[in-house]
Amino acid sequence: MKNFTSVQDVQDINALALEGLSLKQSPFSNKAIGENKTLGLIFFNPSLRTRLSSQKAAQNLGMELFVMNIDKEGWRIETEMGVLMDGDKAEHIKEAAGVISQYCDVLGIRSFPGLTDRNADYSDHILQSFLDFASVPIVSLESATRHPLQSLADLMTIKEHQTNAKPKVVLTWAPHPRALPQAVPNSFAEWMNQADVDLVITHPEGYELDEQFVGNATVSYQQDEALQGADFVYAKNWSSFQQYGKILSTDSNWTITREKMALTNQGKFMHCLPVRRNMIVSDAVIDSPASLVLEQANNRTFAMQAVLKSILESN
Amino acid sequence: MKNFTSVQDVQDINALALEGLSLKQSPFSNKAIGENKTLGLIFFNPSLRTRLSSQKAAQNLGMELFVMNIDKEGWRIETEMGVLMDGDKAEHIKEAAGVISQYCDVLGIRSFPGLTDRNADYSDHILQSFLDFASVPIVSLESATRHPLQSLADLMTIKEHQTNAKPKVVLTWAPHPRALPQAVPNSFAEWMNQADVDLVITHPEGYELDEQFVGNATVSYQQDEALQGADFVYAKNWSSFQQYGKILSTDSNWTITREKMALTNQGKFMHCLPVRRNMIVSDAVIDSPASLVLEQANNRTFAMQAVLKSILESN
Amino acid sequence: MKNFTSVQDVQDINALALEGLSLKQSPFSNKAIGENKTLGLIFFNPSLRTRLSSQKAAQNLGMELFVMNIDKEGWRIETEMGVLMDGDKAEHIKEAAGVISQYCDVLGIRSFPGLTDRNADYSDHILQSFLDFASVPIVSLESATRHPLQSLADLMTIKEHQTNAKPKVVLTWAPHPRALPQAVPNSFAEWMNQADVDLVITHPEGYELDEQFVGNATVSYQQDEALQGADFVYAKNWSSFQQYGKILSTDSNWTITREKMALTNQGKFMHCLPVRRNMIVSDAVIDSPASLVLEQANNRTFAMQAVLKSILESN
Repeated sequence: MKNFTSVQDVQDINALALEGLSLKQSPFSNKAIGENKTLGLIFFNPSLRTRLSSQKAAQNLGMELFVMNIDKEGWRIETEMGVLMDGDKAEHIKEAAGVISQYCDVLGIRSFPGLTDRNADYSDHILQSFLDFASVPIVSLESATRHPLQSLADLMTIKEHQTNAKPKVVLTWAPHPRALPQAVPNSFAEWMNQADVDLVITHPEGYELDEQFVGNATVSYQQDEALQGADFVYAKNWSSFQQYGKILSTDSNWTITREKMALTNQGKFMHCLPVRRNMIVSDAVIDSPASLVLEQANNRTFAMQAVLKSILESN
Repeated sequence: MKNFTSVQDVQDINALALEGLSLKQSPFSNKAIGENKTLGLIFFNPSLRTRLSSQKAAQNLGMELFVMNIDKEGWRIETEMGVLMDGDKAEHIKEAAGVISQYCDVLGIRSFPGLTDRNADYSDHILQSFLDFASVPIVSLESATRHPLQSLADLMTIKEHQTNAKPKVVLTWAPHPRALPQAVPNSFAEWMNQADVDLVITHPEGYELDEQFVGNATVSYQQDEALQGADFVYAKNWSSFQQYGKILSTDSNWTITREKMALTNQGKFMHCLPVRRNMIVSDAVIDSPASLVLEQANNRTFAMQAVLKSILESN
Repeated sequence: MKNFTSVQDVQDINALALEGLSLKQSPFSNKAIGENKTLGLIFFNPSLRTRLSSQKAAQNLGMELFVMNIDKEGWRIETEMGVLMDGDKAEHIKEAAGVISQYCDVLGIRSFPGLTDRNADYSDHILQSFLDFASVPIVSLESATRHPLQSLADLMTIKEHQTNAKPKVVLTWAPHPRALPQAVPNSFAEWMNQADVDLVITHPEGYELDEQFVGNATVSYQQDEALQGADFVYAKNWSSFQQYGKILSTDSNWTITREKMALTNQGKFMHCLPVRRNMIVSDAVIDSPASLVLEQANNRTFAMQAVLKSILESN
């Protein structure tokens, strides 16, 4: 694998997920691979799981690492080309990417969307700049449009818990007080389209995801109908793609409750975290044995480890 | 040792202090213990000594580590149970603790009190939440009520410098411009109550510590009287426990000066740092050979190393 | 080498530069030197290259390390002696330096000037305090007056790219929207004065550097004249030393363009980064093969590695 920024970078997602689950069984069995290799982690935005699981993954592989909150510890970054830099931005992304990549062997980048300019966000400009100007492989730690490490961990978690050959997976919108990116649902849909699952996406009208991510999924505005017989319920809020960045609903009828879960086929509850309790999901559901949220977070380590291993082996 | 959050977690404080002093002599003799083990350090508040000495201790033991300023690098944390999370807090402590503990083998937590609601502070809710929801041993890096790593380092320092079998140790309040927690004096008193010392606590009226920490100590409102014959003078400011969080005095007669030290038995001066010079202690005293403040700070490394070693050996 | 804070600390700058270039060829050949040694990095100001290249250098040598943004993660530091600490500063630099140096074997310090009080800035008070109060060797990560790690990397880069025995090196002022320190040009001039180069410094009137740094360099107010026949063009903005901290000019005629480079002897373009594109240098020049800016940044790793190796070998 050269880079890891979307499902397109992966030859065989099932093989990669199984590699991750294998590393989970023996996390320290490949420490020679990372010897004298450094993972750089650059955050333009906050992170907890991604930050810590990536560190653990690198350490499990014997890699050195550095972590930088570039927005707080470095210089403000100019991302446009051809500008006169006479404002408050001291460093251009072209130099930043070129320089940082000289200090590491694999470089992870997190950069969220602004949620005001859809074209700008969906060009994934910052991630793309690092792809253009860095001299080492790039791993997305969540970009404006995708969160592939999360999706890989989600696939691993589904594989661990599925009880039939082609489980029904329902991605459902749920309410939230703030406008959130579409990166997680985009990416989850993109990955599930390539997995051996029956994917249904349900949300209120106006919350349609970009078609390139929806793929062959069934889309429904009726959550109760969609949940019927679900093996996995993946809840997530996102803001509107069509009326870009807008909150069109905070309807608490979309919160995942025990009554909602009762519609499923003894379905498992999934969420990428952080999660707003009693907005997205009731305490009763997230605290029940059906909740896989901690397992998903745990699998983040081994998803990253599988990705790093694959990159180190092929570069 | 399972966790390290108060003196109650320690079977034999003298043995633990001696273990720390032994590790100080050969810091790298146990590097195999930490192999493939990770220490996580989570800060809700600033830190210098605790942060750096904990890193050094982990590295001395061959452990990997991560450090996270959760208030600045992660998501705002909801700490109450059963709430509708529709405000500015994106993650619940139950998930945060559950998730973070999956990425490490021992987890250190620093969380200061708010100093407005005594019951809330003294429930040590954040530390307790990590004890409840984390899956690995917890080390307090200073909680709302205690700073046991400091107290262990203090005990080690006293052992190194005591010249008689049962030294007189005086914990004295000293003035400070801001309201400070009671964690350090609480903890120091709690540990000294179990050590082979004669403990005297002196402070202006109204600064009485919670009785559970005072234990069998002699309490005096007369600093000069208390200092008579002292072998160790441990100065510290704290805000009132009774009139909770209030500053009742900034009387500079309580500052530790050469004149005050002259009352002692060639006593040594101690403080946990950071210290306000010429408020808590005069330049002349802290810069004199009687000052043990750097030695205390140095012992922080080996206190943490002894704690980590004990935890790794018994888990 | 005991400390590394200016060219004065180095016995033979050419030998040190060649050591750096040798380490670049085999970065991992000295990992035993750093075993059980810790590099501490303390930042009072932002950093990207220095932070990351220093981490890489330490890791290449097998050292452990810690990084602390002391202004954000620790306590506010009092730097004056003899004061009553009743304000917002919780810790004195004497304790901070004494304590931090106990947790590491080499200590790097970054502290920028305030650019309002020249005498204060040029006393390099914070760096000097660490030299006075720390118990381990000190490496400047850029002080108020000098940036010697940058200068060493610059010398290495010139050595790699020079095509004649005594190249002409032109240090030229260039415009910038904000007042910047003189540390980089001071330090570059100081090092070039000891190197086998013909040094010319050019800037508008009023931008004269402190004479102690100018040394034997030729100084010119005519940039075009100065650039004639240059082998290396080192551009940098700085604020006035005489009218201390002031911006006297933002004249875009001083920007390094293709026309300016055409005056040189097929000269190479250098800058320490971060650089304001189209203020300091045009896109066309910095993006041309004549630009060495990424090479300079890359050499930062091996400059630091040579410094650390020399310090560890002699302490």
